[in-house]
Amino acid sequence: MKAHLQLAELVATCHWIGAKGWAPATGGNMSVREDEIHCLLSASGKDKGSLTVDDFIQVEIASNRAPSGRKPSAETALHTLIYRLFPDAGAVLHTHTVNSTVLSRVEKSDSLVLRGYEMQKSLTGQTTHLDALPIAIFDNDQDIDKLARRIEHFATETPLRYGFLLRGHGLTCWGKDVAQARQHLEGLEFLFECEMNLRLLERT
Amino acid sequence: MKAHLQLAELVATCHWIGAKGWAPATGGNMSVREDEIHCLLSASGKDKGSLTVDDFIQVEIASNRAPSGRKPSAETALHTLIYRLFPDAGAVLHTHTVNSTVLSRVEKSDSLVLRGYEMQKSLTGQTTHLDALPIAIFDNDQDIDKLARRIEHFATETPLRYGFLLRGHGLTCWGKDVAQARQHLEGLEFLFECEMNLRLLERT
Amino acid sequence: MKAHLQLAELVATCHWIGAKGWAPATGGNMSVREDEIHCLLSASGKDKGSLTVDDFIQVEIASNRAPSGRKPSAETALHTLIYRLFPDAGAVLHTHTVNSTVLSRVEKSDSLVLRGYEMQKSLTGQTTHLDALPIAIFDNDQDIDKLARRIEHFATETPLRYGFLLRGHGLTCWGKDVAQARQHLEGLEFLFECEMNLRLLERT
Amino acid sequence: MKAHLQLAELVATCHWIGAKGWAPATGGNMSVREDEIHCLLSASGKDKGSLTVDDFIQVEIASNRAPSGRKPSAETALHTLIYRLFPDAGAVLHTHTVNSTVLSRVEKSDSLVLRGYEMQKSLTGQTTHLDALPIAIFDNDQDIDKLARRIEHFATETPLRYGFLLRGHGLTCWGKDVAQARQHLEGLEFLFECEMNLRLLERT
Repeated sequence: MKAHLQLAELVATCHWIGAKGWAPATGGNMSVREDEIHCLLSASGKDKGSLTVDDFIQVEIASNRAPSGRKPSAETALHTLIYRLFPDAGAVLHTHTVNSTVLSRVEKSDSLVLRGYEMQKSLTGQTTHLDALPIAIFDNDQDIDKLARRIEHFATETPLRYGFLLRGHGLTCWGKDVAQARQHLEGLEFLFECEMNLRLLERT
Repeated sequence: MKAHLQLAELVATCHWIGAKGWAPATGGNMSVREDEIHCLLSASGKDKGSLTVDDFIQVEIASNRAPSGRKPSAETALHTLIYRLFPDAGAVLHTHTVNSTVLSRVEKSDSLVLRGYEMQKSLTGQTTHLDALPIAIFDNDQDIDKLARRIEHFATETPLRYGFLLRGHGLTCWGKDVAQARQHLEGLEFLFECEMNLRLLERT
Repeated sequence: MKAHLQLAELVATCHWIGAKGWAPATGGNMSVREDEIHCLLSASGKDKGSLTVDDFIQVEIASNRAPSGRKPSAETALHTLIYRLFPDAGAVLHTHTVNSTVLSRVEKSDSLVLRGYEMQKSLTGQTTHLDALPIAIFDNDQDIDKLARRIEHFATETPLRYGFLLRGHGLTCWGKDVAQARQHLEGLEFLFECEMNLRLLERT
Repeated sequence: MKAHLQLAELVATCHWIGAKGWAPATGGNMSVREDEIHCLLSASGKDKGSLTVDDFIQVEIASNRAPSGRKPSAETALHTLIYRLFPDAGAVLHTHTVNSTVLSRVEKSDSLVLRGYEMQKSLTGQTTHLDALPIAIFDNDQDIDKLARRIEHFATETPLRYGFLLRGHGLTCWGKDVAQARQHLEGLEFLFECEMNLRLLERT
């Protein structure tokens, strides 16, 4: 029952993401955990602004397989990785935005460090603008399984929280439920837009 | 009666702020003066775009306490400070926008000086673009009571009008009623966006 | 009859301008020619996005007086000047936009010269992107009568077409009817946004 | 029958383009292939956001003539060229956007090369962000027949895919049907906006 309510909330969030222009050209994919074994993942090639509950495919978290035989997104492995790494993760949002695409290329290192922003507190557990908050950046890869292993390896050594950037590609973020994942997305996108403008104005 | 009409207008203004994207990720807080003793302040953690009159909490201006026992915003002390400092203030809007966040960091001094803009006249009492109009910037602080005292001390020495910036955090502005507070917000945000662009183009 | 249809179209155009954010904080003013003697001008201090036909005041083109005794905009003299200078002008739009405000300050000379843009052809009579198209810029002045005389003097020596910029203030543009004035506004705003971005990217 | 469904989809796409602000001031023109002999092209001088099926004119692909005698767009020859060059092309979208206008001027060479963007995969047949993807840029020309011949000559020597830029003018893109043309438009516009921002931030 809870999963159905979460799916309804995810559909509403997809429409909101579509209206924001954060998943253009049918890009991006979104999911919600159904139970310990399964998640529900958006089908490929659909406009996020007009998804319905029928556009979500049940996928096994351990195997990336869809029992129905329907073809889930090519990026399924990134969603299931999050659900395996973080038992508390209840929803995953992967968006393609201009700010996340560009910032992840402009920042050449392996993390974007945010500091000095009150909005950092929109991320669960952050209590002050004084902390340096690193958002990991991974080089993009068309081999999603290889990319997932790279991220998994990173997570064994370094805490991975809220989300990560794929260079030139976009943001993947999550939360305990759809509302929290959405708040992390909205907070991170605000921070990225601030950081873009700050770098433009302070560039020497 | 007047307070109820003002609250209805504040709810409409919150929806407008939500649509503008000026209070993302449940950030920001808004209030209206109820009488000499109380104000009505938005509850924490709600999306400003879908607030209703029931999401506002009565707070004592002198003590920051909510008679109902409900928990008002962590930034209550900044609202009540305005109502104490300025007996004519009837509404306070605290927003989190990209322009106010970034400009308040780019400007390293303790005020953003606006000049040469016709839009300065959208601020009550301003009659010409020729004046230098300073908007105070205070360093951000997670200790809101301490921050409020710092602002209060500043106001005893320097006139504080229309609004102030919290560095890396956002804008707090006010007016004699909701309509005037909203006009100040809209005018200041326009001025901030102009100033951002002007600095980008004129940066040497 | 024709004037009433034009007024209805102007009201719709004001709503469109409001939605674009091109007249924030109750700024800007719009008018339509009623006949050879009168124009109908928007009242001051109203949000352009919610104007109705009742918010327009009849003004004598020769004298700037409102027969009804209602108070027209402080910038009435700029509208009536256009109707006096150009007998074919049927509508005047004065907007406050970020791009027109900033560009008119960044450009220190007395005209913004547009060239190389296909969109120049959105301005009546322009047939090629190859022409250099100057848009006059006048220094802002709170004395509107003095400003109007300055513009009038300029127009006796130099052709004034489509619109002009007031430095740090905004754009005033016109057309033979509301549709043409609106097309000039939309074309000029597009050109201003292009020019802003071009200058940012090509600045050395 | 299929052509009528495609036309309905094109009308919806025009409304979407209008809402995006990608064809301001009645600019741009859109078409769909009706059969091997004809296409249906938007009439000139109409706001794309409120086009109806009656605003499309049947045009002969070989001759650019409209059997009805109605006057098609001045840029008809660019649409029919695409349908002649690419038998699989089913829809052509020509838009006027700030990003395509400015980028095509900032880039002085004869192509804009996109690389490193995941969004390149929104273009049919692109499978990786690692490829260098050139989008041809042609100098603008008011002589559309001459411009069309120049593009045709280019296409005999160099593959022309997805779309091309006219310098200072806009984007023309196409697809096998309206949905694919729209996806190419949305993907290319995203890439242009990223490239604009990347160049701003990485400009030395």
